[in-house]
Amino acid sequence: MVTMCKILAIDAGGTTTRAVVVEPSGHCHGLGLASSGNPVSGGFDAAVTSLVSATQLARAAADTGSDAFTAAVIAMAGAGHGFPLGQVRALLVPLGLRGELEVVSDALATFCAGTLRPDGYVLVAGTGAVAARVEHGRLAAVSDGLGWLLGDAGSGYWIGHRVAGAVARFLDGRGPQTALTGLLLDALGIPATQLALAEEPARGRPAVLAQLVDALYALRPVELSRFAPLAFQARDDDVARAILADAASALAATLASVRDPAVDGPLVLGGSVLASGLLAALMPGVATPVLVPDGLVGAAVLGLRSAGVDVDDGVFQRITGDIAALRNTARREMPLPVTRAPESPLPGPLAGG
Amino acid sequence: MVTMCKILAIDAGGTTTRAVVVEPSGHCHGLGLASSGNPVSGGFDAAVTSLVSATQLARAAADTGSDAFTAAVIAMAGAGHGFPLGQVRALLVPLGLRGELEVVSDALATFCAGTLRPDGYVLVAGTGAVAARVEHGRLAAVSDGLGWLLGDAGSGYWIGHRVAGAVARFLDGRGPQTALTGLLLDALGIPATQLALAEEPARGRPAVLAQLVDALYALRPVELSRFAPLAFQARDDDVARAILADAASALAATLASVRDPAVDGPLVLGGSVLASGLLAALMPGVATPVLVPDGLVGAAVLGLRSAGVDVDDGVFQRITGDIAALRNTARREMPLPVTRAPESPLPGPLAGG
Repeated sequence: MVTMCKILAIDAGGTTTRAVVVEPSGHCHGLGLASSGNPVSGGFDAAVTSLVSATQLARAAADTGSDAFTAAVIAMAGAGHGFPLGQVRALLVPLGLRGELEVVSDALATFCAGTLRPDGYVLVAGTGAVAARVEHGRLAAVSDGLGWLLGDAGSGYWIGHRVAGAVARFLDGRGPQTALTGLLLDALGIPATQLALAEEPARGRPAVLAQLVDALYALRPVELSRFAPLAFQARDDDVARAILADAASALAATLASVRDPAVDGPLVLGGSVLASGLLAALMPGVATPVLVPDGLVGAAVLGLRSAGVDVDDGVFQRITGDIAALRNTARREMPLPVTRAPESPLPGPLAGG
Repeated sequence: MVTMCKILAIDAGGTTTRAVVVEPSGHCHGLGLASSGNPVSGGFDAAVTSLVSATQLARAAADTGSDAFTAAVIAMAGAGHGFPLGQVRALLVPLGLRGELEVVSDALATFCAGTLRPDGYVLVAGTGAVAARVEHGRLAAVSDGLGWLLGDAGSGYWIGHRVAGAVARFLDGRGPQTALTGLLLDALGIPATQLALAEEPARGRPAVLAQLVDALYALRPVELSRFAPLAFQARDDDVARAILADAASALAATLASVRDPAVDGPLVLGGSVLASGLLAALMPGVATPVLVPDGLVGAAVLGLRSAGVDVDDGVFQRITGDIAALRNTARREMPLPVTRAPESPLPGPLAGG
């Protein structure tokens, strides 16, 4: 019976949700992409919608016909603490889910995306940031992952927030000039000509600062992670380089706090912030890590294991290879434009002074 | 005619709104207090409601009967950028407003609450933080006041955010023990017995951390300013002392950025964070400042000036003395309990790991 089963594996990230259909052989079919499946990013309803959209796209792309899923596994920050799993399961049943819906930590899934070893360490830095020590295939210690407001040190939000802050301080006369200014104004659609006028104060400060502040407060705070790539883009700029170095230090400290001299094993790094390897090179004490883009492969591994499949090197290589190939052709739901949040967030401060 | 006029003066702070009725002589009547009148704290509707509530209480306490207000002046962060002033005026007319509604910067009002001199400097640190240079009775340069997300360095939000972060890091195993932990858990109604259990990890981390994270994400971010007093309360604690020292440095830097060697004058410090004088003592380069609690006296001064009254030392002393006396007996609207924000904020991250 095991050879007949199909597992639905989902990685619910802070920016992107990925779903794939995996067989016991490790072969994967259909990769569907949707928006954030993390409730911290956009609320529970938006996260549930993303999970369903990604599943629909994966199912359509996999061309599984009327085949059912024996089980589904969702990798999610914090392993779904507070998440309306009953609601998700009810929505997945019409899409073919027959068995259990299991939720696993994004940190564990990322670890399992990089190695089959039972012990080791994982550091995830995407929209958020979390580190964990894995022992016997389970989380033994977790650090950070406390979200944009209280933690996620070194994450995409953390970097994007500092990018925005550095530009605001420059325009406010409290910080050094930085190449991030032009990049951020451009990303927000504020005309570059406004920057040339930055010297003309309106009520004691440049008018472009008020435009910037209004534009940034119109976003959900966690959306500041959109600006993390600007720091990498401007990495020859002193301000950007300092932000990236601070992020590397913060991530190294988070990782160090879960280290146990008695536990040895590989270090897996995952998430968009770590994907390029640039930040890993800046992190003290980090040598030869395994880089993975996200936790999707690990969600597939954990789903097969829960279904009783012995995931050996051959199965693992098939999962990894198939998902890498599928990423090149994956279908994504129509991205939603970034707009003012539906629940009308609070206005920004009154930058006119 | 000037001697017959009455001015409604309002100071719309990030935590408290204050309204008072002032006569050309400087005599003040009726002080009404309400919740935040700053839209960044709770949205435009809540801010408008606070302005109206404070006015109603001031009018009732002043026992002005059917007397009308010749004009009203509201001191507000950013001088009301984006604020629905037409709506506010329409609501104040039934309460007696006959003339103009003027909005002035909270920074200028705070300056005018401390001195009649035309030139000088002001630093406000309440829920938010802003510094300004005043020349000829007008703002000549403004720094910070960029709100909780992008600035307000050294403000009540900034301090409260660091208090919450320090406690989260301690419970997460990434920061030193601090006396702030017990104080914060107590302020949030999390039983102290939970702290004793902090060593018992749930999925790799203490269960009390998940409770703390859930409680903090249930607040509006700017409400973290509620925890700033804990840093002052625990100021003998190393972590708390470092937070206060950093706040003092940040405020000193903001102030320094508006200094002009050619402009001399008094330095007025206002807002709850600076009220005790403790932070001012930690600020490099700050000597003999004038401390004022808020901008209400300044709003009254500016209101009288706009009405053509020559505010001399005698008038100023009467405003200052009367408002100080009224503060002891002021009526406040029933405070609203701090609850989950009405627009259902985003859930916190999933601290279970």
